Amino acid sequence: MERPRHQGMAKNTYMRWRLPLVCLLWEVAMIVLFGVFVRFSPEADAHWEEEKQEMNLTSDIENDFYFRYPSFQDVHVMIFVGFGFLMTFLKRYGFGAVGFNFLLAAFGIQWALLMQGWFHSFKSGKILIGVENLINADFCVGSVCIAFGAILGKTSPIQLLVMTLFQVTLFAVNEYILLNLLHVKDAGGSMTIHTFGAYFGLTVTRILYRPNLEQCKDKQGSVYHSDLFAMIGTLYLWMYWPSFNSAISDHGDAQHRAAINTYCSLAACVLTTMAFSSMLQKKGKLDMVHIQNATLAGGVAVGTSAEMMLTPYGSLIVGFICGIVSTVGYVYLTPFLESRLHIQDTCGIHNLHAMPGLIGGIVGAITAAAATEDVYGKEGFIKAFDFTGAYQTRTPSVQGGFQAAGIVVSLLIAFAGGALVGAILKLPVWGDAAAENCFEDDIYWEVPEDEESDAYHMHNPDKPASP
Amino acid sequence: MERPRHQGMAKNTYMRWRLPLVCLLWEVAMIVLFGVFVRFSPEADAHWEEEKQEMNLTSDIENDFYFRYPSFQDVHVMIFVGFGFLMTFLKRYGFGAVGFNFLLAAFGIQWALLMQGWFHSFKSGKILIGVENLINADFCVGSVCIAFGAILGKTSPIQLLVMTLFQVTLFAVNEYILLNLLHVKDAGGSMTIHTFGAYFGLTVTRILYRPNLEQCKDKQGSVYHSDLFAMIGTLYLWMYWPSFNSAISDHGDAQHRAAINTYCSLAACVLTTMAFSSMLQKKGKLDMVHIQNATLAGGVAVGTSAEMMLTPYGSLIVGFICGIVSTVGYVYLTPFLESRLHIQDTCGIHNLHAMPGLIGGIVGAITAAAATEDVYGKEGFIKAFDFTGAYQTRTPSVQGGFQAAGIVVSLLIAFAGGALVGAILKLPVWGDAAAENCFEDDIYWEVPEDEESDAYHMHNPDKPASP
Amino acid sequence: MERPRHQGMAKNTYMRWRLPLVCLLWEVAMIVLFGVFVRFSPEADAHWEEEKQEMNLTSDIENDFYFRYPSFQDVHVMIFVGFGFLMTFLKRYGFGAVGFNFLLAAFGIQWALLMQGWFHSFKSGKILIGVENLINADFCVGSVCIAFGAILGKTSPIQLLVMTLFQVTLFAVNEYILLNLLHVKDAGGSMTIHTFGAYFGLTVTRILYRPNLEQCKDKQGSVYHSDLFAMIGTLYLWMYWPSFNSAISDHGDAQHRAAINTYCSLAACVLTTMAFSSMLQKKGKLDMVHIQNATLAGGVAVGTSAEMMLTPYGSLIVGFICGIVSTVGYVYLTPFLESRLHIQDTCGIHNLHAMPGLIGGIVGAITAAAATEDVYGKEGFIKAFDFTGAYQTRTPSVQGGFQAAGIVVSLLIAFAGGALVGAILKLPVWGDAAAENCFEDDIYWEVPEDEESDAYHMHNPDKPASP
Repeated sequence: MERPRHQGMAKNTYMRWRLPLVCLLWEVAMIVLFGVFVRFSPEADAHWEEEKQEMNLTSDIENDFYFRYPSFQDVHVMIFVGFGFLMTFLKRYGFGAVGFNFLLAAFGIQWALLMQGWFHSFKSGKILIGVENLINADFCVGSVCIAFGAILGKTSPIQLLVMTLFQVTLFAVNEYILLNLLHVKDAGGSMTIHTFGAYFGLTVTRILYRPNLEQCKDKQGSVYHSDLFAMIGTLYLWMYWPSFNSAISDHGDAQHRAAINTYCSLAACVLTTMAFSSMLQKKGKLDMVHIQNATLAGGVAVGTSAEMMLTPYGSLIVGFICGIVSTVGYVYLTPFLESRLHIQDTCGIHNLHAMPGLIGGIVGAITAAAATEDVYGKEGFIKAFDFTGAYQTRTPSVQGGFQAAGIVVSLLIAFAGGALVGAILKLPVWGDAAAENCFEDDIYWEVPEDEESDAYHMHNPDKPASP
Repeated sequence: MERPRHQGMAKNTYMRWRLPLVCLLWEVAMIVLFGVFVRFSPEADAHWEEEKQEMNLTSDIENDFYFRYPSFQDVHVMIFVGFGFLMTFLKRYGFGAVGFNFLLAAFGIQWALLMQGWFHSFKSGKILIGVENLINADFCVGSVCIAFGAILGKTSPIQLLVMTLFQVTLFAVNEYILLNLLHVKDAGGSMTIHTFGAYFGLTVTRILYRPNLEQCKDKQGSVYHSDLFAMIGTLYLWMYWPSFNSAISDHGDAQHRAAINTYCSLAACVLTTMAFSSMLQKKGKLDMVHIQNATLAGGVAVGTSAEMMLTPYGSLIVGFICGIVSTVGYVYLTPFLESRLHIQDTCGIHNLHAMPGLIGGIVGAITAAAATEDVYGKEGFIKAFDFTGAYQTRTPSVQGGFQAAGIVVSLLIAFAGGALVGAILKLPVWGDAAAENCFEDDIYWEVPEDEESDAYHMHNPDKPASP
Repeated sequence: MERPRHQGMAKNTYMRWRLPLVCLLWEVAMIVLFGVFVRFSPEADAHWEEEKQEMNLTSDIENDFYFRYPSFQDVHVMIFVGFGFLMTFLKRYGFGAVGFNFLLAAFGIQWALLMQGWFHSFKSGKILIGVENLINADFCVGSVCIAFGAILGKTSPIQLLVMTLFQVTLFAVNEYILLNLLHVKDAGGSMTIHTFGAYFGLTVTRILYRPNLEQCKDKQGSVYHSDLFAMIGTLYLWMYWPSFNSAISDHGDAQHRAAINTYCSLAACVLTTMAFSSMLQKKGKLDMVHIQNATLAGGVAVGTSAEMMLTPYGSLIVGFICGIVSTVGYVYLTPFLESRLHIQDTCGIHNLHAMPGLIGGIVGAITAAAATEDVYGKEGFIKAFDFTGAYQTRTPSVQGGFQAAGIVVSLLIAFAGGALVGAILKLPVWGDAAAENCFEDDIYWEVPEDEESDAYHMHNPDKPASP
C-alpha cells in the first residue's frame, strides 16, 4: 500500500486542501446562519412553563418531544446505519459507503434545518426548531442518501457535498410546493423523498455517465461478509420504516395507523420479493441483492397513504405488488437502463425508490380520492386531509388530483435539478476518481494492510511473539 | 461456482417453482383473509376523535400507541436483527440465518395477526388491530425463530414456511388456553413463547434426525468474523429484553417493574455465564457460544414473573441460576442430546430457551402463589392478576396452580404439535438438502465469488487498474 | 491452535479458577446487598395506584417510565453495542472488545445501582429504583467503558472487574460531591462521566505502562472488516447521543432542548473531523480512526450544557472546535503521550473523552454563568438550575464558579483514584498477558480455526462433500 502508485492517466484525486476547505467553509457558513436565524421552538425553550399555561397543557408529557422522539431516533438510525450499511455490499467500498454517507448526512441535516425552517418554521425573523424539525431534516437528507445510491463509488466526497447542498435546497422547494401550495399529504415522503430523490440521483448519474466502467466490473460485486454488513442496513430500514412513515403524522390515530399500514405492506413485500428472486433465477436460488433492496419497496410505496385509511389489506396489496415490481426491475430493468440509457445505477435505486415512489404517489392519490366521511368520521375526515381554512371546500377527488399533480411536480424538479447538478458535478475540479479506480476505498481512505498477509495467521500465537 | 456441480445422490433442492408458488399462494391467502377480517382498532381508526370523547380521554397521548410503540420497535429489532444475526455464527450459513429468519418472520407476523386476532381481538366479525396486536404477532413469530434455531442449516425455506404456518396456529391455540381458559399471566412468554417454541423445535429436529450430519461437522463451526456478527444479535436481544418482557404488561407500574426485573436478571446472568464458561473449559478460556447464548437465559427465565413483584434481588437470583444452567447445558447436555437422543440442536435452544423457559414458568407460578395484598396493595393485587369478574375469588395459591398447569399444557402442545409438523416436514417434497450440503448457503443462495481470490488483493491499486 | 504453545517467560494467564471465583463471589455479594437494600420505586411498585392518587396524577402516562424509557434503551445500546463495537477495530481483539465490555458493564450496572442508590435514592433504609436509576447506572458504567478504552488489549478480565468495582465506587463519590455538595448541573456527564472516566483510565494505563509493547505493533492495527464493525459502534454512539444527554434532564423543555443541542453539535463535529483528517495526512486521505472517534467529541463536549440554553449555533461552535481538537489529538498528541509520558492509550480516549470532556465542563460553566432570567424566563431560570431551597440565592456567576470547581474535583478524584487502582492492578495475581500476547483474543478466548484454511474454500460444494 505504501509503495508508489502508478497513476497513469488517472485524475487528480488529491483531497488534502479541497476537502478541508469545503468542509470548513460550509460549516462556518452554517454557524453564521444558525446564529442569525435558528432558535428553539417554544416546546424546547426554557420559557416552556409559560407556554404550557398559555396552551392550557396540564402535563409535560404533552410536549411534542414525547410524541415524536422515539420515532425520530428510529429515523435517525435509518439515515445513518440503514442507508450507510445498506451500501456496504460492495467488496471494497465499505468505508466510502458508511463514511461518505455519514459526511453528507451530517452536513445535509444542518442545511435542511435552515432551508425547511425558512419555509415552514419561520416566525418573526427566526427559525424555531423542535423535534419535528429534526425529523424533517433527516427526511430531507434521506433523499440525498437515495441519490448517493445511484452514484455510489464513482464520486469524490466533495462532489457529494456539492450535490447535498443543491439537492437539499431543491428538496425544500419541492416540498414547499407540494405541502403548502398544492396542499398535498405526503407524511412518509413517497413523492418528496423517494420519487424526487431517486429521479434526481438517476439524472445525475446519467449525466456523469462513464463509458469505461466495465473495467472494474469485478469490484461492483460483493463478498460474503460485505453482504452480511449490508443486511444490517436492510433490516434497520425495514424494521424502522413504520416509524419513518408515522414520524410526522398527526398525533394519535394517524401515527398509530401509519405504523400499522407500513408494517403490513413491508411484510407482504418480503414474500413476493423472495418468490420472484427465486423464480427469475435459472437455478432458483435467492439473490442477496433482491433481499437487501426489494424487500423495502413496500415501505416506500405506502409513504403517502400510510396515514390514510389505506387499511391493512390495502397495505398488503401494495406491498405484494412492489416486491414484484422491484425484483423484476433488478433483473431486467437495471441492465437495460445501463446498456441502453447509459444510466449507471450502482445500488439500483430505480427499483427500490423510483418505481415504488411513483406507485406510492399514485396509491396516495387514489386513497385520498376514495376518502369518504363515512370511513373517516366527520372530524376525522377534516383532520386527515386538513380540510380547514382555505381548503374547507376541497373534495376528496380534487385532493386526489392535487396529489397526482404532486407526483408530476416532484418528477419535473428532480429531472431539472438533477440535470443542473449533474452538469456542475461534471466540472473537472472536484477530484473524482478515474473509471479504473471506482468502487475502491483506497483512493480516498487510508486502508489497512492486506488481511490475508497478517490477520489470518495472527492467532497463531507463536508467530507474532517471534522476534 | 459456475462450473457444473456434482450432485451425486444429493436431493433435489431446486426451488425455482416450489418456493415462489408457496410464497405467492400464501400471500394471496393473507390478502383475502385480511380483506375479509382485518380492520383498525378504534385507537388507530380515523374515528379516534369520537372514540376519545367516548372514553373520556383528554389528550392524544393517552392513545395506546404512545404506551407501547417504543417497546414494539425494540421487540421488532429482537425478532429480525436479534434472532437473525444470533444465528449467523455458522461460517457459511449467514445468508440463510438472516434471510430465512426474515422470510419466516415476515410471513409469520401476518398469519399471527389473523390467528391471534380471531382469539383475542374479534368484534362483530372483524379483527381490530392496534399496536398491541403487532407486538403479539412479533412474540408469536419469536417462538418460530426459536424453533428455527434447532433446525438451522438443515431445512429448505419451504419447510420453514410450512413449519411457520403450523407453529403459529398452534401457538395461538396454546396461548388462548393459557391466557383465556386457565387465566394465566405470561406477559414475557416464558411458557407461551420459550417453553412452547423450544420444545416444539426440539421435537421437530428429533423427527428430522439426520444420521450422517457429522460429515459436515466442520461447517457447524464459526469463523472469527461470523462470531462477531452473532454478537450483534446477542447484544440486541440482551439490551432490548426489558422491552420484550414489559411490552404488553399493564400501563404504568407493571411495564416499569417488568423492565427493571428483566434488566437485573440479565445482568446477573452475564456473570455466571462467564464464570462457568471459563470453569468448564480445561484451559479456562471463554467460549463465544456461551457468551452469545447463555447470557440471554436470564431474560427468558423472568418472562412470566417480570411484571410481578419478583423484586430486583429475586431477579438477580433467577439470572444467577439460569446463566449456570444454560452454560452447563451447552457443555454437557447438548452433546448428550445429540448422541443419545438423536436431537440435533444447531443453536442449542434447549439451553437458551427450553430449560430457562421451564424455570421461568416455575418462577412465575411461585411468584404468583406467594403474592399477598400486603406486597401488592389492595388495588394492585387485583390489577396484577386480573382477579376480576369470574376470577374475583381466585387466591394466589390457586393462581400458582394454574400457572403450573400452563407449563404442562405448553409442553404437551409443543410435543404433539412438533411431532405432527416434524412428520409433515419429513415428506420428500420440500426440497431439503442432503446431509453433506447442510449448513451451506450455496444450496439456496447465490453466493459471491471466493473472497480469497479477489477481495484481499483488491486494494492493491496496481492490479485492478492493469488492463 | 491445538498444538502446544510455547509460553516462554509469558505470564500465567490461566483463568480457570480465578475468573469464575471473582464472578461468582461478586454476584453473590450483589444478591445479598440487593436483598437487603433494593426495592422498587413508587412508580414501579404495585402500590402505584395509591401513589397516583396521592400525587394527583390522572393517567398512567404520567409515570416516569414513559418520559425516560425510550432514552434509557438508547443509552443501553450505547453502552453495550456502542462502546463494545467501537473497540472491535483491532484485528484480533474483537471478542475481547465486545465480550469484556459486556462483562464489566453487566457487573458495573449492578454495583452502580447500589452505590448511586445509597447516595441518591435511599429512603427509610431502602434503595428505591426506577427507570432513572437504570439510566444512571448505565451512565456510571459508561465511565468504566471509557477507561477500558485506554487499557484495551492489555488487561485480563479479572483486572477489568477489579477496576470496575473501584471505578464505580469512585464515580458515585465524585458524582455525589458534584451534584449534591457543589450543586452542579451535569446531565450528560461531561465532567462526571467523560472527564472523570478518561483521566481515571489514562492514569491507570500510565501506571500499567508496558515498555515492550511495540513488539505487537502490528496487532494494534485494524483490518478492513474490523474497521466496519467499529463503525457500527461509532454510529450507534453518534445517533443515540442526543438521548444520552437528554435522558435524565427535567421533563419537558429540558429533555427536548438537550436533544436538539446534541444533534447540532454532533453534526458540526463530523465536518471538522473529516476536514482535519484529510488535512493532516500527507496524501490527503481520510483515516478511519478519526472518523470512528473524533466525530463523537461533539457529543461529549455538550454533556454539561446541552440542557441549558446553549442554543443551536452555540452547539455548532462547540462541535466545530471539538472535531478539530480531537482529530489533532489523534495525529499529534497520542504519539507524544505514548513516547514521552508513557501513556499507552489504545483507543485514544484522551482525544475522544478527556479533552472534549474538559471542554464540556468549561462550556457548561460559561453557559451557566451567562444565564439570565431574560433568556430562561422567571420560572425556567429557577427550574433549569434548581435554584430552590438552600440555593435560592445563588447567582449564575456563582453557579459558573461551582461548575468550574466540579471539573477540578473530577480531575483530582480521577488522578488519585486511577493511581490507586493502577497500583492494585499491577499486583501480579490478576493474570494479565505478557506484552507479546497483548491485543490477542487467543489468550482468554476459544478462537475458531483459521478462516483462510477452510472458510474461503467452503462454498466450493465439491470439496466438503468429498469423503
